[in-house]
Amino acid sequence: MGNLEHSCGVIGLSLDTKVAPFAKKALRVIQHRGQESAGVAIFNDGHISYLRDMGLVHEVLRGSEYYNLTGNVCIGHVRYSTEGESKASNCQPMTVTTSYGDIALAHNGDITNATELREQLSKKGWAFLTTSDTEIIIRILAKEFNETRDPIKAIKNTLRMIEGAYSLTMLIGDRLFGIRDPMGFRPLCIGRLKEGNVVVSESAALDVTGGEFIRDVLPGEIIEVTRTSFHSVRTPAPKNPAHCMFEWVYFARPDSIMECREAYEVRKRIGQILASEHPIDADVVVPVPDSGRAHAIGYAEGSGIKYEEGFMKNRYVERTFIMPVQKQREAGVMLKLNPIRSTVKGRRLVVVDDSIVRGTTLRKLVQMLRRAGAEEVHVRIGCPPIVAPCFYGVDMKTRGQFVATGRTVDEIAEHITADSLGYISIDGLVKALNIPYQDLCLACLNGEYPTPIPGERQRFQTRLNEHGQ
Amino acid sequence: MGNLEHSCGVIGLSLDTKVAPFAKKALRVIQHRGQESAGVAIFNDGHISYLRDMGLVHEVLRGSEYYNLTGNVCIGHVRYSTEGESKASNCQPMTVTTSYGDIALAHNGDITNATELREQLSKKGWAFLTTSDTEIIIRILAKEFNETRDPIKAIKNTLRMIEGAYSLTMLIGDRLFGIRDPMGFRPLCIGRLKEGNVVVSESAALDVTGGEFIRDVLPGEIIEVTRTSFHSVRTPAPKNPAHCMFEWVYFARPDSIMECREAYEVRKRIGQILASEHPIDADVVVPVPDSGRAHAIGYAEGSGIKYEEGFMKNRYVERTFIMPVQKQREAGVMLKLNPIRSTVKGRRLVVVDDSIVRGTTLRKLVQMLRRAGAEEVHVRIGCPPIVAPCFYGVDMKTRGQFVATGRTVDEIAEHITADSLGYISIDGLVKALNIPYQDLCLACLNGEYPTPIPGERQRFQTRLNEHGQ
Amino acid sequence: MGNLEHSCGVIGLSLDTKVAPFAKKALRVIQHRGQESAGVAIFNDGHISYLRDMGLVHEVLRGSEYYNLTGNVCIGHVRYSTEGESKASNCQPMTVTTSYGDIALAHNGDITNATELREQLSKKGWAFLTTSDTEIIIRILAKEFNETRDPIKAIKNTLRMIEGAYSLTMLIGDRLFGIRDPMGFRPLCIGRLKEGNVVVSESAALDVTGGEFIRDVLPGEIIEVTRTSFHSVRTPAPKNPAHCMFEWVYFARPDSIMECREAYEVRKRIGQILASEHPIDADVVVPVPDSGRAHAIGYAEGSGIKYEEGFMKNRYVERTFIMPVQKQREAGVMLKLNPIRSTVKGRRLVVVDDSIVRGTTLRKLVQMLRRAGAEEVHVRIGCPPIVAPCFYGVDMKTRGQFVATGRTVDEIAEHITADSLGYISIDGLVKALNIPYQDLCLACLNGEYPTPIPGERQRFQTRLNEHGQ
Amino acid sequence: MGNLEHSCGVIGLSLDTKVAPFAKKALRVIQHRGQESAGVAIFNDGHISYLRDMGLVHEVLRGSEYYNLTGNVCIGHVRYSTEGESKASNCQPMTVTTSYGDIALAHNGDITNATELREQLSKKGWAFLTTSDTEIIIRILAKEFNETRDPIKAIKNTLRMIEGAYSLTMLIGDRLFGIRDPMGFRPLCIGRLKEGNVVVSESAALDVTGGEFIRDVLPGEIIEVTRTSFHSVRTPAPKNPAHCMFEWVYFARPDSIMECREAYEVRKRIGQILASEHPIDADVVVPVPDSGRAHAIGYAEGSGIKYEEGFMKNRYVERTFIMPVQKQREAGVMLKLNPIRSTVKGRRLVVVDDSIVRGTTLRKLVQMLRRAGAEEVHVRIGCPPIVAPCFYGVDMKTRGQFVATGRTVDEIAEHITADSLGYISIDGLVKALNIPYQDLCLACLNGEYPTPIPGERQRFQTRLNEHGQ
Repeated sequence: MGNLEHSCGVIGLSLDTKVAPFAKKALRVIQHRGQESAGVAIFNDGHISYLRDMGLVHEVLRGSEYYNLTGNVCIGHVRYSTEGESKASNCQPMTVTTSYGDIALAHNGDITNATELREQLSKKGWAFLTTSDTEIIIRILAKEFNETRDPIKAIKNTLRMIEGAYSLTMLIGDRLFGIRDPMGFRPLCIGRLKEGNVVVSESAALDVTGGEFIRDVLPGEIIEVTRTSFHSVRTPAPKNPAHCMFEWVYFARPDSIMECREAYEVRKRIGQILASEHPIDADVVVPVPDSGRAHAIGYAEGSGIKYEEGFMKNRYVERTFIMPVQKQREAGVMLKLNPIRSTVKGRRLVVVDDSIVRGTTLRKLVQMLRRAGAEEVHVRIGCPPIVAPCFYGVDMKTRGQFVATGRTVDEIAEHITADSLGYISIDGLVKALNIPYQDLCLACLNGEYPTPIPGERQRFQTRLNEHGQ
Repeated sequence: MGNLEHSCGVIGLSLDTKVAPFAKKALRVIQHRGQESAGVAIFNDGHISYLRDMGLVHEVLRGSEYYNLTGNVCIGHVRYSTEGESKASNCQPMTVTTSYGDIALAHNGDITNATELREQLSKKGWAFLTTSDTEIIIRILAKEFNETRDPIKAIKNTLRMIEGAYSLTMLIGDRLFGIRDPMGFRPLCIGRLKEGNVVVSESAALDVTGGEFIRDVLPGEIIEVTRTSFHSVRTPAPKNPAHCMFEWVYFARPDSIMECREAYEVRKRIGQILASEHPIDADVVVPVPDSGRAHAIGYAEGSGIKYEEGFMKNRYVERTFIMPVQKQREAGVMLKLNPIRSTVKGRRLVVVDDSIVRGTTLRKLVQMLRRAGAEEVHVRIGCPPIVAPCFYGVDMKTRGQFVATGRTVDEIAEHITADSLGYISIDGLVKALNIPYQDLCLACLNGEYPTPIPGERQRFQTRLNEHGQ
Repeated sequence: MGNLEHSCGVIGLSLDTKVAPFAKKALRVIQHRGQESAGVAIFNDGHISYLRDMGLVHEVLRGSEYYNLTGNVCIGHVRYSTEGESKASNCQPMTVTTSYGDIALAHNGDITNATELREQLSKKGWAFLTTSDTEIIIRILAKEFNETRDPIKAIKNTLRMIEGAYSLTMLIGDRLFGIRDPMGFRPLCIGRLKEGNVVVSESAALDVTGGEFIRDVLPGEIIEVTRTSFHSVRTPAPKNPAHCMFEWVYFARPDSIMECREAYEVRKRIGQILASEHPIDADVVVPVPDSGRAHAIGYAEGSGIKYEEGFMKNRYVERTFIMPVQKQREAGVMLKLNPIRSTVKGRRLVVVDDSIVRGTTLRKLVQMLRRAGAEEVHVRIGCPPIVAPCFYGVDMKTRGQFVATGRTVDEIAEHITADSLGYISIDGLVKALNIPYQDLCLACLNGEYPTPIPGERQRFQTRLNEHGQ
Repeated sequence: MGNLEHSCGVIGLSLDTKVAPFAKKALRVIQHRGQESAGVAIFNDGHISYLRDMGLVHEVLRGSEYYNLTGNVCIGHVRYSTEGESKASNCQPMTVTTSYGDIALAHNGDITNATELREQLSKKGWAFLTTSDTEIIIRILAKEFNETRDPIKAIKNTLRMIEGAYSLTMLIGDRLFGIRDPMGFRPLCIGRLKEGNVVVSESAALDVTGGEFIRDVLPGEIIEVTRTSFHSVRTPAPKNPAHCMFEWVYFARPDSIMECREAYEVRKRIGQILASEHPIDADVVVPVPDSGRAHAIGYAEGSGIKYEEGFMKNRYVERTFIMPVQKQREAGVMLKLNPIRSTVKGRRLVVVDDSIVRGTTLRKLVQMLRRAGAEEVHVRIGCPPIVAPCFYGVDMKTRGQFVATGRTVDEIAEHITADSLGYISIDGLVKALNIPYQDLCLACLNGEYPTPIPGERQRFQTRLNEHGQ
């Protein structure tokens, strides 16, 4: 895929000291989950203040405007956004005032019944100020909070109405909550600092603040976080979750641990299995940097073929957060990657990347390697063919964009001009993840959705027949 | 007062051509009504798009982001804001989506029952995303629109709930409305261009777009504006309006005509009456530029004392729209104004300004003139002493800030170190305005509020006794 | 002319305290002399540091970069620039290092033999890093300083080589000098603060720093300024200077005093004489704001016709310092000025402006007044027709740009669509200035240049015949 | 070392089409050689225009200001700068005008006799406008050009005067030259595009413009580049060059080829030799990303220990080009690098980096690995201890900053808290480079300088004894 630019990230901190500097550090660690906008909402002296805007964490959270935000409890957000939603008014955390205090919400995911809810609430006369799912959640929450005057009841009632993928951090007044949807699509974990407690999308954020990882928030769990404790307000009965496999394959930082599985380790195992599923006689294994590096190391280990760097990656790349990211990604391949001759020339190469969505980048890379004198270029991909859209927070909403739509693997190989192409199998991927098949969301790979999506097949209803499980 | 920086301004245009360039021109003409944020909302192809942000009109409405906004119908806003509300999320026009289409609203004024409405609606479970009165109006409107599906009924129902000062421009889908509160506190007028029709805070905006002034919107009137017509949806029965005298005294551009009275002309007349009320033997009349210029010309005319420029005004002044404007105003007097020696030295001066709020600037100016050799400095003010707060859209909310609070005119003269001080009388002002006493809001001068304000006296209840009318 | 945007300005300060805050204040007062770039050079601890860049004073001299500049002696500059020279590398003060210390130079004016000197020095093998005259001066100076090791001899030798218009402030190491060319084209004066001494383009800058005016630097004088004294290093024998009449007519602030004549007072006198030279039966005199205001007050006084404001001037105007200023000036007339109806409608107007260069703005203004209902529009101009280029620091380099080139006054009146047009006569102007004819530069009015300009007539050689003096 | 931020880079292009877009692409590829400022100088229609400023290539070379620069021949520059020289006026290319046309110069390196030349020329009365060595070169060149009127003679005469390290690109009018100092310290190569010819610091820049590498410019060679040809104006007699070993160790992109040796390949070979010189019993080899990656792959290959990624590198790092880079580098280690647990925990690690200058970063990394559960941390460094300053273009000017100054290897190991520490030997490095010992500059490693440096030993004079060669 080539670029760590996806999916949003959330944090929540309750400390015994000024929280702003910690929030900034933590958000910078999860910056890869969203580069379009950043923000925090901090409780102080009866009210919630916020600072949020378009830009990177260090561009938004700075100056006296930021460091004057006092208060010990906060939530924060980094947003990746699809075209058309690039509006300052959609920046998060979102905040509202109610009769019984302020509420702030940060959301990572996609609400699958958002359109339906929006319609239903609109018919009741609700007017929406933004186009974001988050407004739907926070306003239902505010209404429930107003009626119940009980934060926890309000949360529970709200969650009953919304479907889809969500990892939330939330302030109701000065009370901080971390919530994960019942399927556990997106990651969320808790950790402990010297100064208090944290809930965050990825465990890597704990290291930089000197914290220690405690555990993942469970699918469906609601945790209240205070500076001294975590209180599991609701621990749902165990049922089959639907962890997004893409978090390990690509989204999460390699140093993040989700469901006790570190992304780096999983990626390396993917590479090893890929080597056994799609062996090839070659001279050298090279990654597409940076996303394919761990998979390539695994492939090298599994195949016994030696690992080399095959591309130089230029770090000085323009960033325009107005433009949709995809366009840039395609335009700048040659400015960003350049072959390393000694690795490439006269060699039979295995090029390993994490995944293929559109295939445009990979096609250019293969051609670049040939021009640099590669004898053979064999492509190996650490994710099975993507054939179905994602409704759970990944910016792949239409089948038309996938190179794998209506093409066989051979046809894709031809399209990207590779000598051979091998995708890891779904079974191989599941094995690498070491998470039961029925506990994963593989919807983009097999078209079976863990939650009801109009016009799409639902998981388990079809799986038994097809996979015999 | 010294600075044209107040009160907000609104526009609405319905043209037979792309509206964006016209909207920008019109907003720039009313830029003096608000320099903190600017924005437009434009209807196009079933939806309302917007561009709004902190900054001056030419800083916000520019580039492809602005000129790519197609559509022929729009509203726009410039905002002046008090401290604490300097938030990008409070920028206007505000927009919402509803079941039956998008709504956009631009608001100039203050809703006096905002706190009460907010509380009442909050108790019903409404959560507010902003701290702005405008959200209250637009959300009530959206609810009413949803229930009635009739824009006009919805507007009427909404207006029934809100009290205070408001001149509104509004899009309900592609339908454009201009509305003025029943008291007519803030100005609003309609005009005709070659390309269509306009509703705008000040008539001066018509000139720059090549338009012609038609008339003021009546107090309490709702006008639907199309590119070819104006339709008065509601023409309320005549009753006593409460036009803010400050619009003529200071806020409006001198070239704007409100209630058939041009601000410049009124100001000059104020000066003439001031001359008769507070004559003095002096050598020269000088204005505090730029706001006191017309008053000074009138005073010169009335007194027969010759008019001169007494101060040079430096136009190159820093603008920070984060900082509340007042602080700057006080800090920079000496950088901004400098005496002209030939006018001042050895002369007995009459210094004329539009009004005194805090008195700090004027005190510095008097001292500056003395240092420059003025023999005598007599101050004349085109507005009676301000002694009561404004709840109708002017940033004077507390009695503590007024120099006239608890001071006689002589004490104020002493405070500002003037040899003499004369304020125009309320009767003089009313005469200059040539608007019946009972049709004006003079609340900041006499503490009698045209609408019920908890803890304050209401107009007419006390007036009869005090003024014998 | 309509815009105070011209000609550059210089300062020099020697204080017993940190000079940076004073320098900023002083430069802001002379900001009208140049808005393209700003800068200071400050001597500290054996070296000269500088901060200079494109932008207004408050945009360039700010932040820790500025306030960390310690040192008690400095020079400063604001630059107005013509197209093609808008380069950061031309920003002033210019600084050089030499064997015997650093030198810094700020220059207001035009060196008439610059091309010749540049050529001559180039032939000696000198290479120039910038296109600015200032580099020529500073490098000759450095060379002379190196040879003589005597700052004063070096200055004198340098001045012997350069011709034209220059008011200079200069640091040679920690020694501060103020210098005016032998003709005294551009103003320069000295003043005393509580904290030390100042040399500056305009006396108005003294007021804001709490200083007192001492006197003008004499034409041809070199003054060394220390914190406690002024030492006139060279007081040239009296001869006919050539003060630029335009400084009083338009460039200088009205509150500045040059050659004991305040600009405001001169302008008013111009108006009075204009009234006697070009009387007209009219209802009202209106200025083109802000530049024509003093002239108009004078005209009103002289004619007995009453003075009124006829235009509202919009202060919120875009500034792009990349673009040459002229283009903007023409484009934005309607956005900037709007007629005040009560003054204009049905009236016979006398419109007074300081000068006409191209005539485009004035033409638009006259038409604007007609559309606003003016019955007659009579234009009176406080400067005789400009017919010849300026080589002494004003951005009027070609005859082709002048509306008066090849047109009679009647033809110009027709061109600008005025009912009548009257320029003050040269004699009238000289009388208003109350400076002997032979002590003024009137080259742009009569084509007689005070210094030899190839292809142009020289002053005195022709004057005797033509003017009988 | 940890950061690709050093040493400057130059380009020159002569094309048959508009050169600006090509120049931008090429400069972006060598952006790693300097991130402080960027610029180009383009010859067009008799003159040289330029655009240069503080900032990255894509921040400076953009907009109409850049794309309106027409012309087919240009030079360009990216600058890395040491503290105190962060001045806009030091931006390159530097340009001068002379009697016989414009000259532009871009310089990568350090002139060792700059102080002496500056002093000598200053005594002749030359004044310097900047603090940059480049001004010295270009002004001598301009003088020589003026005297000889022969670009090539002028260049030769100039080069005779300057000593030290320099790779230059130069425009004399429309004639483009590429020059390398007689020692060949810094790289420079030529290449051919479809559209013309190129001279550039690193060969990698050729790929992105679709060009093909021809050869290195020889030490001491002067090449004139036209759109159709390369003409070697001076090919010096072979003698011992002094290629900076650091270009291969760290500065150059891994995909660049210098002296027929690709940086990646050399780094890998360094790793292999390091493995044989400093073997250790360990579980895994990890690089310090990104600079140590190739060395680590080599070490893994040489030792048979498996290669893994041990750190996640955060790409979203603040950049302030005002601040000296070193401070940032040290501050942000933890925000930038985070251990990957599965690689680290319970493992005996070999951490490979390219070099150690101060040791502060490495110390933090070792401690970070220990906290993450590393059992043992063995550090291996691909460059011998740096013990002497560089006077040839690298920002290491004082002995005091080196961790190796006054410390044995064991003491350094203790300082950085490593279990063991191994530096490659000088002989090992030379072997890896496969360049004769006498053809390298190893001054920072052995204190023997290829050119005379006052107070330092010179190469060859001492070497025979010490190394027996």
